[in-house]
Amino acid sequence: MLGGGVTKIGEHWSKSLRDLFVEAAFKALEDSNLELKNIEAIYIGNMSSGELQGQEHLGSLMATWLGIPGVAAVKVEAACASGGAVFHQAYLAVASGLYDCVLVGGVEKMTDAVVHDVTAALVMADDAEYTAFTGASFVGLNAIVYRYYMEKYHVKQEDIALFSVHDHKYASNNPYAQYPFQVTLEKVLSSPLVADPIRLLECSPIGDGAAALILCSEKFARENGIRPGVEVAASALATDTISLMDREDLTTLTATVKAARKAYKMARIEPQDVDVMEVHDAFTILGVIHLEDLGFAEKGSGWKLVKEGEIEKDAKIPTNLSGGLKARGHPVGATGVYQVYEIYQQLTGIAPNQVEKAEIGLAQSVGGVGGTVVVNILQRVR
Amino acid sequence: MLGGGVTKIGEHWSKSLRDLFVEAAFKALEDSNLELKNIEAIYIGNMSSGELQGQEHLGSLMATWLGIPGVAAVKVEAACASGGAVFHQAYLAVASGLYDCVLVGGVEKMTDAVVHDVTAALVMADDAEYTAFTGASFVGLNAIVYRYYMEKYHVKQEDIALFSVHDHKYASNNPYAQYPFQVTLEKVLSSPLVADPIRLLECSPIGDGAAALILCSEKFARENGIRPGVEVAASALATDTISLMDREDLTTLTATVKAARKAYKMARIEPQDVDVMEVHDAFTILGVIHLEDLGFAEKGSGWKLVKEGEIEKDAKIPTNLSGGLKARGHPVGATGVYQVYEIYQQLTGIAPNQVEKAEIGLAQSVGGVGGTVVVNILQRVR
Repeated sequence: MLGGGVTKIGEHWSKSLRDLFVEAAFKALEDSNLELKNIEAIYIGNMSSGELQGQEHLGSLMATWLGIPGVAAVKVEAACASGGAVFHQAYLAVASGLYDCVLVGGVEKMTDAVVHDVTAALVMADDAEYTAFTGASFVGLNAIVYRYYMEKYHVKQEDIALFSVHDHKYASNNPYAQYPFQVTLEKVLSSPLVADPIRLLECSPIGDGAAALILCSEKFARENGIRPGVEVAASALATDTISLMDREDLTTLTATVKAARKAYKMARIEPQDVDVMEVHDAFTILGVIHLEDLGFAEKGSGWKLVKEGEIEKDAKIPTNLSGGLKARGHPVGATGVYQVYEIYQQLTGIAPNQVEKAEIGLAQSVGGVGGTVVVNILQRVR
Repeated sequence: MLGGGVTKIGEHWSKSLRDLFVEAAFKALEDSNLELKNIEAIYIGNMSSGELQGQEHLGSLMATWLGIPGVAAVKVEAACASGGAVFHQAYLAVASGLYDCVLVGGVEKMTDAVVHDVTAALVMADDAEYTAFTGASFVGLNAIVYRYYMEKYHVKQEDIALFSVHDHKYASNNPYAQYPFQVTLEKVLSSPLVADPIRLLECSPIGDGAAALILCSEKFARENGIRPGVEVAASALATDTISLMDREDLTTLTATVKAARKAYKMARIEPQDVDVMEVHDAFTILGVIHLEDLGFAEKGSGWKLVKEGEIEKDAKIPTNLSGGLKARGHPVGATGVYQVYEIYQQLTGIAPNQVEKAEIGLAQSVGGVGGTVVVNILQRVR
């Protein structure tokens, strides 16, 4: 990996989908000391441009607006995991030997939607005919998981809701975070109910943003006299049933377990080797569940890691130091790329909330209620 | 390539998006003598499931409905070239060494649309803010190309419209074609005007369909004692400006020229080595232009190949023996996969309109008005 760039996440009423992508792409090029002519392919992660902007064909669109029509360019979609999935595809493209230098980015513009409303667009991540059809919203589905987890493991909401407090604490120091301020547990628990038991301040927000990274082959780096500081150690993608109703256990995302197992094996590491990570906490309960499914806590006890300070910057497994989905923000198709960018910053020593001597970092990207999970692992080049 | 399968194209009021995909996938598995457990990843080409079915996250959805949630699965979108583009990605996935056996399919369900109408969905292949915004439809944009071509090269419509007669001739013998009947030139020219000068019988139809193929690595074939009859000789993807207004010449698709040049080089062949091909004739004029851009005729003279019978089954460059987009049908995101399936049939000697001793076949898939073009070349294993 040669470099990356991101836009601040927020309500960008003066910037369109293409503006955001181009801004992040040029930042990534500058950060990598490369020029447009070096880019052979563009991979774009996005979930809802058709529904929200009335725009498909983002490959050709972004190639055009970057000024390099001609290069290969496609969109990859895997719902809310589109960012992680597009990184996986870009990695495969370079690993195949057909492309030596690719731009991989994610973008989503959720404010200023012209076709659908955002809630209707997001629930397309679940089964349109069996779930969305009933009128279930995405937060409603996560509320089922939340309630089930509390009942099964006898955990109180205040222990789960702490994940939001954690995220906001670190977002307050992140210049590209959507909500860079701290919140108290009292404030989270007294915020409006969205879908019982989920409170407003337990939900990741709606926002606009784009993130971009440059990946190259060893050959490209050698020929251009570049010594990359970070390399991709593993990239793994797994699916699960698209709907909760088909799952044996609502409190574990088996796609996380499968993707993580594959990624750890590919990177030849164990969970305890991970120095810093970003998890896909679309809702507080998911943050807790991810800590368990990724191998850092027993089932039913992920919340303890949060409560006991084990996911803080200088603790056992520093997590979501960007502010996570909750406070950095969650522009859906871009989120997985933001996560990898955060890990890239950590491994190159330039993160806003820097972990000392971080060597290995992990980013987990989730689509739907775990219908797709991507685990990407980066490591510092020694 | 180990095998493939397709559904008949048509108005499948009793089959949903997932039904079509699953049907094609199982046919491909059967044709390949493989089982579900062999599949490591699913690549799905689709343009408009969000707009037409209110459904994204096709990766997880199709993995679920095939009965193999767990495997990697993503959707790839490049407008009308989604089928060609997803084949390119699946090829990269196997070439990377990370996946040894993948299912690559395309699907589109255009009848029974629940959210948008199809014309509104299709124009999302062009620029939403600068083109679609004006009210232009997709056929209207192609009418501009058609008119410009006739003026520039002094060609009469009856010579271009012949492409439709050609396609229907071969579709009449193709069991999975949407319109398996012949038409006369008189009938084409007297059919209703859709967008001047384009007549109804010069337009590819709206339809539902799915196509699927199995790709595997040499290692997989060796370990499973399989000797594939066909291999991928080249796969290349190129873009152009998304809108016509930014092009220097409206009568050539530079993305075809670029992708073809790259593909010929990769396969180490010249155009004259191609024994059979499928081109993306969404409208008759495009069929003519593709013959030129792919290197089989001088600019302005592609229509002569059609008129002089040079694209017939036993002639110089047998083209669209499936019936092409016009008569086989054009279920958008599936079309590029149908094309490769047709070539696969030709190279294994089982095509409905079989070319004798076909060794090398080419499939060209186009997105938008040439904003994306993919050229895939297959060859018989000697």
